[in-house]
Amino acid sequence: MKSHTEYLWFSTRERVEFINITDECERVLRESGVREGLMLVSAMHITASIWINDNEPGIWKDAQELLANLAPYNRPYRHNLTGEDNADAHLKNLLVGHEAVIPITNGKLDFGPWQQVFYCEFDGRRRKRVIVKVIGE
Amino acid sequence: MKSHTEYLWFSTRERVEFINITDECERVLRESGVREGLMLVSAMHITASIWINDNEPGIWKDAQELLANLAPYNRPYRHNLTGEDNADAHLKNLLVGHEAVIPITNGKLDFGPWQQVFYCEFDGRRRKRVIVKVIGE
Amino acid sequence: MKSHTEYLWFSTRERVEFINITDECERVLRESGVREGLMLVSAMHITASIWINDNEPGIWKDAQELLANLAPYNRPYRHNLTGEDNADAHLKNLLVGHEAVIPITNGKLDFGPWQQVFYCEFDGRRRKRVIVKVIGE
Repeated sequence: MKSHTEYLWFSTRERVEFINITDECERVLRESGVREGLMLVSAMHITASIWINDNEPGIWKDAQELLANLAPYNRPYRHNLTGEDNADAHLKNLLVGHEAVIPITNGKLDFGPWQQVFYCEFDGRRRKRVIVKVIGE
Repeated sequence: MKSHTEYLWFSTRERVEFINITDECERVLRESGVREGLMLVSAMHITASIWINDNEPGIWKDAQELLANLAPYNRPYRHNLTGEDNADAHLKNLLVGHEAVIPITNGKLDFGPWQQVFYCEFDGRRRKRVIVKVIGE
Repeated sequence: MKSHTEYLWFSTRERVEFINITDECERVLRESGVREGLMLVSAMHITASIWINDNEPGIWKDAQELLANLAPYNRPYRHNLTGEDNADAHLKNLLVGHEAVIPITNGKLDFGPWQQVFYCEFDGRRRKRVIVKVIGE
């Protein structure tokens, strides 16, 4: 079994921002040499998520608006009593999830026609990391 | 390491519909010959999800109603300005997630007594695919 | 490829309760002997979830409150017509998800500084199980 691990760093300009990382994931796959296996893409902070969806800016805004309605910024959250202001970002992570697991077949990300990988930042403007780990053969 | 990949096709009668695919997943596992490993079950479209839950039609309806409340059909979503009418289906995918990863132990899906695998269609009435990929030994 | 499987049992005092299981996951990893691979942590019941987040009780309460607002206990759910009272717990599982997949690098859970693993019980006060499965080398 082969394994290959890389860390992607992000520092977004906006507090909430989605970034298409499909090309980076494909690059990591090529460097891994894996032809059949799984790729794990996972946020290493607890105020960000990975989402597989559409490379269409309208849907990113729709998603950000939905999440802002469900878990608005700066409400009287208990977590914010610790001095933080990012409880909403933890709650967005709760709803969207931490990671994606992507199938690798014949040396490619085995995606349908519209699938792209996004890093979803909910509390940005500082350096944060994503792990991309490939296992297989 | 062994790997085995199959694609399941669906074309639902309803726009929103849940389909129990546990038997199909078990069949793919048998064909893989894997005794210890992981099964990835993942929607290949971005308007569908995989959910592990109960083989009880009432809870499917409850889930569909909750998602219809959180992300209703045909609101003024930005994504629908592109000519699509399925932004709500992308948002349901955001909340439910894309995939399930299932443990394989002693040649079986290592499930508790009530766990079943569902394909959750949010924008059906056309041909769409799910990948089932098994890795292990 | 090595694999190693353990089952963790829980019986919470409260109906809804989050339990930090990071130490247990690290113990299972040590026993597996795996240095590079993946760990799957997955609820074996359909009224519980796994969440990777912060070891801070305020955010657990914020998360429980958000989920209680989105899927309140004891509404006229169809599932509860079967004689159950736990439809809300199934819906919380829908929103949070079933499992976490954790990267293993150099024999450690490859986590950022704040990541911890939580068992999220939504219908407790009875014995329920989580599977922890490690694959790798």
